[in-house]
Amino acid sequence: MVDSLIIKNVNILTMNSERQIIENGVVIVKDSTIEDVGGEELLEKYPSGNIIDGKNGILMPGMVNTHTHAAMVFFRSLGDDVQDRLKKYIFPLEKKMVDKSFVYFGSKYGIAEMLLGGVTTFVDMYFFEDEVAKAAKEMGIRAVLGETVVDFPSPDSKEPYGGLYYGERFIEKWKQEELIIPAIAPHAPYSNDTEHLQAASALAEKYKVPMMMHVAEMDYEVEKYRKEYDMTPVQYLDSIGVLKENFIAAHLVHVNDEDMDIIEKRNIGIAHNMGANSKGAKGVMPLKEMYRRKLKIGLGSDGPMSGNTLDILTQMPLVAKVHKLFNQDRSLFPASEIVEMATIGGARALNLQDKIGSIEPGKKADMVILETHSVNMQPIHDYYSVIVYSANPSNVDTVIVNGKVLVQNKCLTQIDFGELRNKISQWKPEIN
Amino acid sequence: MVDSLIIKNVNILTMNSERQIIENGVVIVKDSTIEDVGGEELLEKYPSGNIIDGKNGILMPGMVNTHTHAAMVFFRSLGDDVQDRLKKYIFPLEKKMVDKSFVYFGSKYGIAEMLLGGVTTFVDMYFFEDEVAKAAKEMGIRAVLGETVVDFPSPDSKEPYGGLYYGERFIEKWKQEELIIPAIAPHAPYSNDTEHLQAASALAEKYKVPMMMHVAEMDYEVEKYRKEYDMTPVQYLDSIGVLKENFIAAHLVHVNDEDMDIIEKRNIGIAHNMGANSKGAKGVMPLKEMYRRKLKIGLGSDGPMSGNTLDILTQMPLVAKVHKLFNQDRSLFPASEIVEMATIGGARALNLQDKIGSIEPGKKADMVILETHSVNMQPIHDYYSVIVYSANPSNVDTVIVNGKVLVQNKCLTQIDFGELRNKISQWKPEIN
Repeated sequence: MVDSLIIKNVNILTMNSERQIIENGVVIVKDSTIEDVGGEELLEKYPSGNIIDGKNGILMPGMVNTHTHAAMVFFRSLGDDVQDRLKKYIFPLEKKMVDKSFVYFGSKYGIAEMLLGGVTTFVDMYFFEDEVAKAAKEMGIRAVLGETVVDFPSPDSKEPYGGLYYGERFIEKWKQEELIIPAIAPHAPYSNDTEHLQAASALAEKYKVPMMMHVAEMDYEVEKYRKEYDMTPVQYLDSIGVLKENFIAAHLVHVNDEDMDIIEKRNIGIAHNMGANSKGAKGVMPLKEMYRRKLKIGLGSDGPMSGNTLDILTQMPLVAKVHKLFNQDRSLFPASEIVEMATIGGARALNLQDKIGSIEPGKKADMVILETHSVNMQPIHDYYSVIVYSANPSNVDTVIVNGKVLVQNKCLTQIDFGELRNKISQWKPEIN
Repeated sequence: MVDSLIIKNVNILTMNSERQIIENGVVIVKDSTIEDVGGEELLEKYPSGNIIDGKNGILMPGMVNTHTHAAMVFFRSLGDDVQDRLKKYIFPLEKKMVDKSFVYFGSKYGIAEMLLGGVTTFVDMYFFEDEVAKAAKEMGIRAVLGETVVDFPSPDSKEPYGGLYYGERFIEKWKQEELIIPAIAPHAPYSNDTEHLQAASALAEKYKVPMMMHVAEMDYEVEKYRKEYDMTPVQYLDSIGVLKENFIAAHLVHVNDEDMDIIEKRNIGIAHNMGANSKGAKGVMPLKEMYRRKLKIGLGSDGPMSGNTLDILTQMPLVAKVHKLFNQDRSLFPASEIVEMATIGGARALNLQDKIGSIEPGKKADMVILETHSVNMQPIHDYYSVIVYSANPSNVDTVIVNGKVLVQNKCLTQIDFGELRNKISQWKPEIN
């Protein structure tokens, strides 16, 4: 049995249901689990253990990245400002470049970036998802990983819809793993037919795993379902019976009130990717109404060709600012609500709220310490404001996942980052 | 005479009129001035000097922050999400708290943050501007500093409009200083009457200094001039004759085509503060049309109660993303144009484009090296994209102002930052 971990000299944003803040607080971790949370009196109650001195930093729940394609970090800074990018640029590039090694090293690098930025759980959709799982296991991060299903030959499947076959083997292989939740991930409604979407849903049902999909992201997607079915993408997906509680929808930019009724009724999770949606000029999700309805909303970076950086701290100010702007209300989404979406909100979107997303006894020890000595982190009149409006990923000092310290003093504790960086920095894309 | 400075092993974004990029480049600095810019052959031409090894980083022109109130950093993270903040919250807080020492230490801290974030020139409007000038001189940053004029008693003036009197003495005192350009800064049209706006303009004319003002920022401002004059704020200011080439307007959120005709004709500078304008739900400046007209557009952080962080790197992705979103065009404002606004655009807004804003022989040596070894800075398929979509202020490694190295290895070279931080972190506001 390992020693307890004693985290002291921190200001704790518990994100529990009372949104309790404990200044000069202490957290006790046993094995993978939070044992106790309180003030300095805990130091007497638990006299022995490995001490982490938080140096008056901010201890918050690990952030949840509810949507990404981590391996695409190889493509980061390529074609950022190009029109109609997915079909004309990304799919051909992937067809040419993506293999097992690409996915393994890209994911490993992406996970390194997420950990260094305070993300302790991430949701990934890509090809060769088995390689993502291997990378995630080696790095020690918590992950929900979905193999992609598309209606055309993909990097890991010669046949259309080969992801369904790959996906089932993938789920069987990883379903017992402690930190990994395998899943199935049809790319989007418009890149799958009804039959195969239902097959993916049946697979998720059979294994009790999540199903993820890009939904209502594209204007041409909306147009297609309007023309063919006189429905919205959400209405179409509901009509074919695939929207269930284990469903995580990324984007949901183009949804109306009726769609939100469906989302509420089916209790699906929402991954809000403001960085990617704004950079891609996709539109603005109706977050105000979704939040009012208490839907399960988490934040996502999207893939690093779309959102570029993989941390969630970078998303937070953008989510706050764009929605304030669109709703012409500076008091909308105060900082505390943004931190909520980045932590317990993300956990709810993944149905993991009993396990992660807040700092409470009995929950898994997924936590982050933000240092407060850097120039941007002072003064602190409001912890939530500092996180949302001032912090950046470089302020993440310590990251703990499932009780293990994976980042300390802003460095990964378990791998040689320089070696990994060389893999990424020396790679050159083949672009016609 | 000091030795030359030789900067090598850098990838230079010159931001000259051809937007030339020199990979593995070299820059030679003599005294305060850029002597030569080129490839490795310069190392033979200039064999001796103090060498700065850029370690394959990105060398770019120092960024220009065209609008802030640096001393307000003391108030950062206070009242971020409060409605009608300026009149109900900020003005009373300032009346109570702002004195010379507040302005001196706040400005010094704000300047520290700007330097550490790669800002080499900033524009400030506040009270006790003499203290800002002292702080700027001590820190070695380039600055355009304007004393505030308002129609009510202010922290440094018992009488309304006392800033005009203070301002003239301030201008006389600092007008010979190498790095400091003193200026006069009426707060806004709605907080000054016509007579005193014209007096401020005459003062700027007399001393050949800039005049700065918040313009067309507030909805109530637009309403006031519509009701009283049937004009927009820009039309009103033009009608009273104060819009001249030395005028720098912050915000300009609420402007129409006729206003842009005026702005173009009068050739005034524009400080675009997207972070503050979005967080404050003020609205979106018509940047697309302004840029098409080749107006003089720079980026600004606004004060740290409004924009929170004082660097310009944080503004860049927001400017790109919000305008793409509002114009529904992901190809609008490609990364290179955003970097342009942050550097040579800002210089143009201040009429300093012959002196700063690009890396060219004869210009002042105001430059920044971004390191490229941090996780967010790889891979690099496009330098501009990396800066706009991935970098954050923690990636600033080296900052040179007027030939002096003020930041090296991410630390200030000339002051004890810890001591300065204590001044800020230990301060507590008195709020009712």
